[in-house]
Amino acid sequence: MSDQDLRVGLIGAGRMGADHARRIHERISNARLVAVGDPDIDRARQAAADTGARAEQDPFEVIGASDVDALVIASPGVAHEPLLLAAIERGVPVLCEKPLTPDSKSSLRVVEAEQARGKHLVQVGFMRRFDPEYVELKHLLDNGELGRALVLHCAHRNASTPPGFTSEMMIYDSVVHEFDTTRWLLGQEISAVSVRWPRSSAAAPEGLIDPQVVTIETTGGVLADVEIFVNCGFGYQVRCEAVGERGAALIGASGGPLIQQSGRWGGNVTEDFRGRFGIAFDEEFQRWAHAARRGGVDPTAASAWDGYAAAAACAAGVQAQATGERAAVELVDRPDFYS
Amino acid sequence: MSDQDLRVGLIGAGRMGADHARRIHERISNARLVAVGDPDIDRARQAAADTGARAEQDPFEVIGASDVDALVIASPGVAHEPLLLAAIERGVPVLCEKPLTPDSKSSLRVVEAEQARGKHLVQVGFMRRFDPEYVELKHLLDNGELGRALVLHCAHRNASTPPGFTSEMMIYDSVVHEFDTTRWLLGQEISAVSVRWPRSSAAAPEGLIDPQVVTIETTGGVLADVEIFVNCGFGYQVRCEAVGERGAALIGASGGPLIQQSGRWGGNVTEDFRGRFGIAFDEEFQRWAHAARRGGVDPTAASAWDGYAAAAACAAGVQAQATGERAAVELVDRPDFYS
Amino acid sequence: MSDQDLRVGLIGAGRMGADHARRIHERISNARLVAVGDPDIDRARQAAADTGARAEQDPFEVIGASDVDALVIASPGVAHEPLLLAAIERGVPVLCEKPLTPDSKSSLRVVEAEQARGKHLVQVGFMRRFDPEYVELKHLLDNGELGRALVLHCAHRNASTPPGFTSEMMIYDSVVHEFDTTRWLLGQEISAVSVRWPRSSAAAPEGLIDPQVVTIETTGGVLADVEIFVNCGFGYQVRCEAVGERGAALIGASGGPLIQQSGRWGGNVTEDFRGRFGIAFDEEFQRWAHAARRGGVDPTAASAWDGYAAAAACAAGVQAQATGERAAVELVDRPDFYS
Amino acid sequence: MSDQDLRVGLIGAGRMGADHARRIHERISNARLVAVGDPDIDRARQAAADTGARAEQDPFEVIGASDVDALVIASPGVAHEPLLLAAIERGVPVLCEKPLTPDSKSSLRVVEAEQARGKHLVQVGFMRRFDPEYVELKHLLDNGELGRALVLHCAHRNASTPPGFTSEMMIYDSVVHEFDTTRWLLGQEISAVSVRWPRSSAAAPEGLIDPQVVTIETTGGVLADVEIFVNCGFGYQVRCEAVGERGAALIGASGGPLIQQSGRWGGNVTEDFRGRFGIAFDEEFQRWAHAARRGGVDPTAASAWDGYAAAAACAAGVQAQATGERAAVELVDRPDFYS
Repeated sequence: MSDQDLRVGLIGAGRMGADHARRIHERISNARLVAVGDPDIDRARQAAADTGARAEQDPFEVIGASDVDALVIASPGVAHEPLLLAAIERGVPVLCEKPLTPDSKSSLRVVEAEQARGKHLVQVGFMRRFDPEYVELKHLLDNGELGRALVLHCAHRNASTPPGFTSEMMIYDSVVHEFDTTRWLLGQEISAVSVRWPRSSAAAPEGLIDPQVVTIETTGGVLADVEIFVNCGFGYQVRCEAVGERGAALIGASGGPLIQQSGRWGGNVTEDFRGRFGIAFDEEFQRWAHAARRGGVDPTAASAWDGYAAAAACAAGVQAQATGERAAVELVDRPDFYS
Repeated sequence: MSDQDLRVGLIGAGRMGADHARRIHERISNARLVAVGDPDIDRARQAAADTGARAEQDPFEVIGASDVDALVIASPGVAHEPLLLAAIERGVPVLCEKPLTPDSKSSLRVVEAEQARGKHLVQVGFMRRFDPEYVELKHLLDNGELGRALVLHCAHRNASTPPGFTSEMMIYDSVVHEFDTTRWLLGQEISAVSVRWPRSSAAAPEGLIDPQVVTIETTGGVLADVEIFVNCGFGYQVRCEAVGERGAALIGASGGPLIQQSGRWGGNVTEDFRGRFGIAFDEEFQRWAHAARRGGVDPTAASAWDGYAAAAACAAGVQAQATGERAAVELVDRPDFYS
Repeated sequence: MSDQDLRVGLIGAGRMGADHARRIHERISNARLVAVGDPDIDRARQAAADTGARAEQDPFEVIGASDVDALVIASPGVAHEPLLLAAIERGVPVLCEKPLTPDSKSSLRVVEAEQARGKHLVQVGFMRRFDPEYVELKHLLDNGELGRALVLHCAHRNASTPPGFTSEMMIYDSVVHEFDTTRWLLGQEISAVSVRWPRSSAAAPEGLIDPQVVTIETTGGVLADVEIFVNCGFGYQVRCEAVGERGAALIGASGGPLIQQSGRWGGNVTEDFRGRFGIAFDEEFQRWAHAARRGGVDPTAASAWDGYAAAAACAAGVQAQATGERAAVELVDRPDFYS
Repeated sequence: MSDQDLRVGLIGAGRMGADHARRIHERISNARLVAVGDPDIDRARQAAADTGARAEQDPFEVIGASDVDALVIASPGVAHEPLLLAAIERGVPVLCEKPLTPDSKSSLRVVEAEQARGKHLVQVGFMRRFDPEYVELKHLLDNGELGRALVLHCAHRNASTPPGFTSEMMIYDSVVHEFDTTRWLLGQEISAVSVRWPRSSAAAPEGLIDPQVVTIETTGGVLADVEIFVNCGFGYQVRCEAVGERGAALIGASGGPLIQQSGRWGGNVTEDFRGRFGIAFDEEFQRWAHAARRGGVDPTAASAWDGYAAAAACAAGVQAQATGERAAVELVDRPDFYS
């Protein structure tokens, strides 16, 4: 009923934030957008337009507003920590776009603050956990059909990169998803990361090493390789094959109508992550809204701990990139609070 | 905003109705369930439970209630006509599960009533129009990539039938979807229907002719064949291939993770229509809610006219089944109101 | 050993005959080409060049030659009957390209002659029986994995037609293969043929009805539909799906490398029947050579009876095309000789 | 013609040799088997039976026989060197099953002997070069459709291993094929090999590390990863994806009829390498026979140099396995004779 609608405040009105404003307004049941905060007030107004929400220049006004039951944070990662700490202090559920924070130390502070608060409030936006194919893959692993997992083969491809895209961003913005899906699919932590690369593509901008092959080791002895190729030219593609003791399962290889035309059979490759993961975003937000109305977080979603672990893996990944050596992932002991 | 939430009354609390109650409550933005009407009041109560809606024994109480902005009709098809006429009279938007009504004469009366009311209020629940793959197929046909359509090949398979399922129900309950998708994909009316069949499967219950092959002719000269096989044993599968002058496109053939296991490669077949069309139902309802809040219907959805045309095609289909002869489809002239 | 090599005479040095000359010379073990006969002696010489075979203008010289152990007939169908009768009289094994003869009456005369001779000598070149995918499909049907067959869905597509191609040739040259595969896969005779068609493609030459949909009924109650589309534009494609009581199996839908490129996933469609059935031709000839060295025919191959039955089905198909009515297939009783 | 038939001597009548005896006798045009040599004379007799060939206990008798035009060597790798040197001395073309010899030093002696003889005589049995899908993949790379190659992803899976199979054999017997295909597809040498592994499968026999992931670096800067998993349980599968600057192409992922049955869609996985590469073996032998009749080798096939380079890569692979470190591949300069 309307008096139970979750009243959502959104912080960050960039491309992703504006998408989420529309999503909350048009697609998510039992939730409505009440405020959009962005230092660029015009952008905030634009995202709020037609949603019934007000615009604020100061994000902390949104966090502190009495009519805000829950928060979505879609501002740049560097701004996340103080926003998260304020939200935790106020005790409101937060769906925070990845990364939780840009580095593991600050992520750990968020983890500690949440733990101190004694209540699960923070959820990180690793939307692949809500993609129907990833969900099926996890189901196949969990129900034992494939036997114990041994190897993962992943590919993460973008048609091209925007100006200014760096090798580090390939880890922080892209492979971070594979760090999370690896941890989530297997229920294991990442113990080490290595990075190798072939000669770069002629299509890669100067200074960008592209493609790269990241190797992930887990505490359970699984080896995962990730091809990350952000100027592959032909579209957006995210693939994952899990190889187990009794079988293997692959997602993301193809899909959509099978077309016969001009001497070819096949189909179209999605242009970007929206086409591939649009349904996953909707599902993520809907389940978050249901959970947040009850004051909590969706247990399937990535927690603050997951955000911290991903940040630590990214740090190792960037170090491995820089040194060419295998980098161990250092994590504090997992608190019982997150088990 | 909450004061703009669409207040929905649901009529019919059987399996489909109960599904829709949950859908409206949990998945559909800007809509909330306020009343559930079913002659079986216990069933109504069960469907309404936890949704904040009240239960009513008399469906017309729901239609007439001042707090009901829009209606979903999910009762058996034989009960639809008076419900629809009452809703049209009251001027509330209706999402009516297929069939509009069980026969073309009564469907025509609904069409005429809506036309007399002068406002588009009725939408028929042909959910395939909201399935992402069907939408892509229509896009391929509309944008000319395949050239003009010439032939459709369809297959519609269920693992098995419940007791009491008849050959006529294969037309009314199953092939009716192919009648609608054929009309919608092509933008043409159906001009004639023929039905042939091989020997029946040993798995078909006594008295049921299964499988059957239905041939559809359209006013634009397209020939569509539909294999309808409701005891195929292996799962639920809906396929459609459109063959055009420059290419062909197929949907529904396979999907989900590609598994290598036990000497086989491949994936799982969906058990029933929920697995296959769950997302389509959500999309259908969400778009309907948006349109109904503005007092109208979704232009993509099937109209009362489409419901009437499908009923007329079903009548021809059942006649063709009974006589073994090609049966022409008789339609009144399409009113400008529906063009 | 070389003294056991099958000495082959080839009649007909057109495109198909020249292919076969090369095939026998380069690919077929235990066989060598000794003579090529064609009224166009230059063409015969060209096909014989580099193979060690001599050229003859009179095909009957080839049939009668004492150093010819076996014959391949690749001349036009209208010329087949006297050649076959002469070969039967001489008692040499023959691999005759389809059709056996252009009509069922003359085919029956060949059947009767072979029967009178009391020895299986004639094999008809329905090469699909040697295609690995067709062989697997037959295996699935024979071993009962799919249950009893109920329906076949076939598609037979060519990129375009040469000048002078007629609607009748769509039956005689193309659908004749589906007549044979239907009979062979099912072990049943064809009882009736119907033909329907949508509006023709703009790419079809004037006077040609293209595509067409042929429906085949068998004595075992199976219904087969065949889309025949000879100006489909995108390549050569032969598909067959067998639907049985417990499952369905499809061949020919796709194949080759899976390519991701230019916004598409998928592969290349074969340009013509050589790309699709090259291996089947090799296998057909190799197995024929082994059988012919022992004086007989390959039991898997199409017999003279199969050639006769295909001719009778073609006659019904062309009649159904001309009249728009279902045409029954008339066959004499199958002699024990062919059971 | 028969007097030009290549007279083949076969050395080694184990499982592979017996297969080849049958292949030469039944499938290969212009070649006939005249002698089979094996220290186990009974085995030699069995392989020779029905082929018209004689059996010899001493392989060198076969090499020296005046009626032997060419040799097939299918004995264990440790026996190859003296056989190859004798054949080179006699000047007869040899098709030698892989490995050329078990180590790069002895392989280099063969290379030097052939070079000293001044004539290309030795061909190594890397049959994948004749597999239609690999050929298509090479074609896609050579014609530039995919752009310059950057990364290869390979998987090489066997259902299970025979007793006594060791981790070293995973390199020498299995990954050796990926060493050759990598070199051949790219036209580059291998510069280094690394090996990593996850925890082993419970299905791996004690002492066997299975699966393993081999990383290959090439002189052209390409990075190839190979999953080698010889107790995968579900069948035999060889996959290769080439990722280039403009696209990617994958072979070996699936194939055969697409079956819908028992709640699954998909097809059957080949049990062993015969099902997967049978046609490649036939093609390899046929082309070798044509070349050997002219006294030479097939330019597509792997040369003695290729055999040497594969042996050197294997040595690096086994070293990398033992040390856990990246091992460089040491090759002598490539003689002009092999360019």
